This record gives sequence, C-alpha cells and structure tokens, in this order.
Amino acid sequence: MSTSNSPSSFPVVIINTGGTFNKRYQPLTGLLTVANDERTIEELLHSASPNLDMHLIGLIHKDSLDMTQSDRALICASIRNSLPAFNSAPVIIIHGTDTMHETALFLDEENLNRVIVITGAMRPAEIDPVEASLHLGLTLGFAAANPPPGIYIAMHGRVLPYAEYRKNRTLGVFQTT
Amino acid sequence: MSTSNSPSSFPVVIINTGGTFNKRYQPLTGLLTVANDERTIEELLHSASPNLDMHLIGLIHKDSLDMTQSDRALICASIRNSLPAFNSAPVIIIHGTDTMHETALFLDEENLNRVIVITGAMRPAEIDPVEASLHLGLTLGFAAANPPPGIYIAMHGRVLPYAEYRKNRTLGVFQTT
Amino acid sequence: MSTSNSPSSFPVVIINTGGTFNKRYQPLTGLLTVANDERTIEELLHSASPNLDMHLIGLIHKDSLDMTQSDRALICASIRNSLPAFNSAPVIIIHGTDTMHETALFLDEENLNRVIVITGAMRPAEIDPVEASLHLGLTLGFAAANPPPGIYIAMHGRVLPYAEYRKNRTLGVFQTT
Amino acid sequence: MSTSNSPSSFPVVIINTGGTFNKRYQPLTGLLTVANDERTIEELLHSASPNLDMHLIGLIHKDSLDMTQSDRALICASIRNSLPAFNSAPVIIIHGTDTMHETALFLDEENLNRVIVITGAMRPAEIDPVEASLHLGLTLGFAAANPPPGIYIAMHGRVLPYAEYRKNRTLGVFQTT
Repeated sequence: MSTSNSPSSFPVVIINTGGTFNKRYQPLTGLLTVANDERTIEELLHSASPNLDMHLIGLIHKDSLDMTQSDRALICASIRNSLPAFNSAPVIIIHGTDTMHETALFLDEENLNRVIVITGAMRPAEIDPVEASLHLGLTLGFAAANPPPGIYIAMHGRVLPYAEYRKNRTLGVFQTT
Repeated sequence: MSTSNSPSSFPVVIINTGGTFNKRYQPLTGLLTVANDERTIEELLHSASPNLDMHLIGLIHKDSLDMTQSDRALICASIRNSLPAFNSAPVIIIHGTDTMHETALFLDEENLNRVIVITGAMRPAEIDPVEASLHLGLTLGFAAANPPPGIYIAMHGRVLPYAEYRKNRTLGVFQTT
Repeated sequence: MSTSNSPSSFPVVIINTGGTFNKRYQPLTGLLTVANDERTIEELLHSASPNLDMHLIGLIHKDSLDMTQSDRALICASIRNSLPAFNSAPVIIIHGTDTMHETALFLDEENLNRVIVITGAMRPAEIDPVEASLHLGLTLGFAAANPPPGIYIAMHGRVLPYAEYRKNRTLGVFQTT
Repeated sequence: MSTSNSPSSFPVVIINTGGTFNKRYQPLTGLLTVANDERTIEELLHSASPNLDMHLIGLIHKDSLDMTQSDRALICASIRNSLPAFNSAPVIIIHGTDTMHETALFLDEENLNRVIVITGAMRPAEIDPVEASLHLGLTLGFAAANPPPGIYIAMHGRVLPYAEYRKNRTLGVFQTT
C-alpha cells in the first residue's frame, strides 16, 4: 500500500519497580505481597508483544511507601545505562501510586532528556486486570505520539506532566493540581 | 504545587460502532452477537471515568464485515455534529477489525481535521477484557499527547497513521505496512 | 413427562460468617478485608438462584482466626432458629479455613441433627472465583444427595465428615486425617 | 486426631464430551468452537486436584446437537472399560446441555449400575468460569455423598435423577419436570 515510515516494532524500555500493580495474594500467609518478578506485565502485554521491541527490567519490587532515594538512584542508573538499541526509546515505569511524584521529581532533577511515563494501579492487576491494562495502554499510546522529553504520569484515563497530576489520597483518584 | 495547565477533565468523543470488541454470548441461541449498547465501554472505563469528560455515542452496532458506506457516512456525520463542547476533542471509534481501514479511508477523504483514533479487539471484551482495555488505554494515551489531526489505528501495542498499519488476517495481528 | 418427586426449588440455609472467601481489596488502605455483606455469595450463585429457595444469613463477617466461642454460639442459634420453612433444610456455612474444625466441633456438641456443610476458600473469591465456586458447588451437590445429618467440611474437591478432613497449613490444602 | 475412614484421594472418572462448557473463541475465524482438549476442566479443577484421583477421558468433543447414538455408545463403552482402579468410581460426564437427556436415557438402558452425573454449562467456561465451576463442584459434592447408582443431571444448583430434571429451552434454565 504505502511505504511505511514506521519500523516493524516499537522499542520501549519498561522498568518494573513493583507497587500495588504487582501485588499477588499468598494463600499460606493471607498477605498480598509485591511479586518479585515481571510475570504480571508479561501476561497483560501478551496481545501487544508481537509489535513491541520491549526491554523489560525488573528492579526493587517494593511497595512505593518503602521506596528510598537510593532505589530512585537505581531507577535513574538503569535508564542512563539502557542498552544502545534503547537509548532513545521511551521509558515506562511501573510504580506504586503513593510516591510516584517523589520518583518523578528525582528523575526530573537528573535531566535525563527522555520520555519517561510513570504508571501503576490502585488495585492489584491480579484483582483488577482492567485498570492495570488501561494504564499500560495509556503509557504505550502516549509514547506512540512521540511527545517531548519529560516526566509524565499516566493514571485514570489521562497522561500529564507529573507536576500537573497527583494522587488524591482521600478519593483514591489522580487529579490535576 | 504548580498552577495546572490542564483542565480538570479530559474531553473525548467515543463512538461505539460495535465489532468483536462488543460481542456477547447469548446462552439461548449459542451465538456471540454484537451488543446493542455501550455497557462494555462504560464498564472498562469505570476507573478512568472521574477524569474523562466523555461524550459516548452508540451507532450501528455491527460486525465490521457488515458495515456499509452509509454506515460510514453516519459515523462521519456524528463527528461533524459533535456537541459544541466537543468540537475540537479527540474522537475514538470502537470498530470491528476487518474494515477499520475502509472506515479510516472514508473519514480521511472527508477532511475532518480532527484527531480520530480507531480501535477494536480481536477477542470480545467479555472473553478477554485485557486486550480490550489495553486498546482503550492506547487511544486515550495517544490523544493525551495532543497529536496532529489525522486518522490513526490503535491496536496491539501501537498507534499509527492508518495507512501505515493493517491487519494481517493470517496472523490475526496488526502490522506495519 | 414423569411426575416429579422433587419440589420445584431446593431449600437451603446459607450462613455467611466471612473468612478469606469474602475478602475484598480496599484501594484506599491497601488492605484485604472481610466484606460486611453477602454480595460475593449472591454473585457466585447467580446462575443457580432460579432453582434455590435460599435463606441467606449474614453473621459475624470475620477472619476465622478472630472467631470466638460466642461467635460460634451465634451460628448455632441461627441454625436452631431457622425459619419454619427451612427447619429441615441443609445448612451451608461459609467460614474462614483456619478454624473450620473448631466451629465444626462446637456445632457437633450441640446435637443439631442437621446436615451442616462448612466451606470457605484459600483465596478470596474476588481474586479466584473458580475455587470459591467449586466449593459452593460441592456443598450444594453434597446436600442434594440427602446425606445423613452430620457436620461436614467441603474443600478442595471433597466433602467429608469434619473429623476426617483437616487443613494442612504447610501446604494450604485440606487433607484426610 | 481420628483414624480416617476415607482414602487419601477420591477416585473419579471424568468423561469430557465437549459442549458449550468447552467452547473457546477463535480470533482468526470469529467462531466459538468446542475445544479438542481437556484443558478447561484441568484448569478449573486445579485447586481440587491434590485430593482427586482423577481419570480424565476426552471423547467426541462435539456440540451436543451433533451427538449421535454411536457417540453415546462410545461414552458407554468408555464407562464399561474403565481402568480396574476406577471400576466402581463415580462417573462425571461433561456434555452439551441440549441432549443431556438423550444421553442419560441411552446410558440408563445400558444398566451400568454406576453413579453417573452429567453436567455442562449454558455459557462457555472461557466466558463464565463461575457457572462451569459451580457445576463441576455439584458433581463432585454429589458423588462424595455416595448416592445410589443412577443417572443424574447436575445443573443450576441442583442434582437430580435425569428423569426429573430437564432444560427449559425458553428460559435457558434446568427445571424439575
């Protein structure tokens, strides 16, 4: 038909840091804990995977309330040290919702000059795969539009620069500031 | 924190034309048929709805193989006749996968000068809510980046101008042309 | 066809005491808590409800580790005080798995002379509706066979007199003693 | 505690003949077809499998409207030729709902002198795992009560001798006759 301007797959770095998105129920203990693997993301992206050239990195695997500045430095280092094939690819970070803003601020000060989209979920993907999938879709759709470098948050139907979008902890919904 | 540049909700027109995305099983007949309502979209977007100013229009409700040029004219008219509050909002069209390209071509020739993102699903949302949610997320994320006017297809992890992205019917996957 | 020997619906008392079966995720707190309602049971039994004459009683709504002897006395009283129409109907008790045996023992000493089937789940129905539904099915199928009065446990594919079937806490599976 | 009267696992023959229970969506054709495997049953019984000594036999794999008398003879032969370890075990047959009664009648005339419980689903397990799981639970719970030999139907909350329980095709619900 036409000669495509687009490569046959879309390069993207996905950094999984854990958060509620990745929590799974442990029947022996009765606890919901952050899984120490990338299985949830792989399963949710199954239908998209033929078109993604995905560099999936698992790091930290914590509830975001437990995330430290050295954890954030590790995220930053993993972005800076992307494989050469991915060094201009958009970066998607799966993260707990409570401290997304702190991580965004940390990354902003590092002047990474990359498209970085942070997402997560209010409910574990194991319980609510719809919310989690919508959020992964938001990040990929936003990145597909080739936006200017910056740190963005993708949650609850919108993707905005991190400084304009925050979690309302009373309502459990992200809102514009 | 900062004074937001973004309105408190995101205006979007969603036109539901049916397709596999909206098929539901009818236990009395044993058939999967396109539902004549917008319930699937409303349920999948439940978590996003507090942030969306959504004008949801139900039209046609067909399998896309049965869609005619007059159906396409109806889609076009419903875009042109958007409520004033939505006349520059992005337009998301839920559509069967087999004739997305024909509808895109039809709309392209109408010079609507709008951001129009067509999506759908290979499997009914009733069976695979993850694929359907990813695709709705793709459309909203793409629209959030304020892309140039045009007709786009959002499927299987990517959003591209319609002329560059087509369904491979042998594999059941959208691919770059 | 034939003259039926069976009434047009099956009378059953269902006592919901809570337990993991009824836990739901609370996104504002990040906790899984026992729901204070009967919605989970009603939803899971939706397809069976035309054939059940169900007297559904909500009591206690606790994690079974927190259940006291006075809670057990309350279960017992609610069985003794069944509505007249249900005073010979089988009794199904939804209960946390950790103290099913203690509740069974308590009820056994009360000489209720009823068919009492205790069930529950290792994973919340919200996360694993299949295990929860299998267990509800076990209880209804067992009761349908008109077994002798007694206290039974229905879990993990089997229904047995409570003294012969216990939770193996290391494996998270009920096993014969 | 007590010396168990029950063996450590429950022997059961499960004959999968197909039916709506086993239908899966084929995205390339848009059709729901009866899967030619036992995967659905294996997945739904996962949590019960440690306690079941299950002899799972796949046969026929048809929509029940297409089932012939020679298919029924095949079911009968597979019951008669059970492995010795299973020759007094209860038999569960997964079957399409439209001709359960015809199969029950056929088996009844064969004087098999076994507990045979026929089940199925009004909606494919892929779409509604709750109904399918309830029905598997019904069969296992009924068999656990050691009922007299006979041909039973387990659907929609009840298990009854086949002559007393039939599908109401207008309502899509099994009812007493």
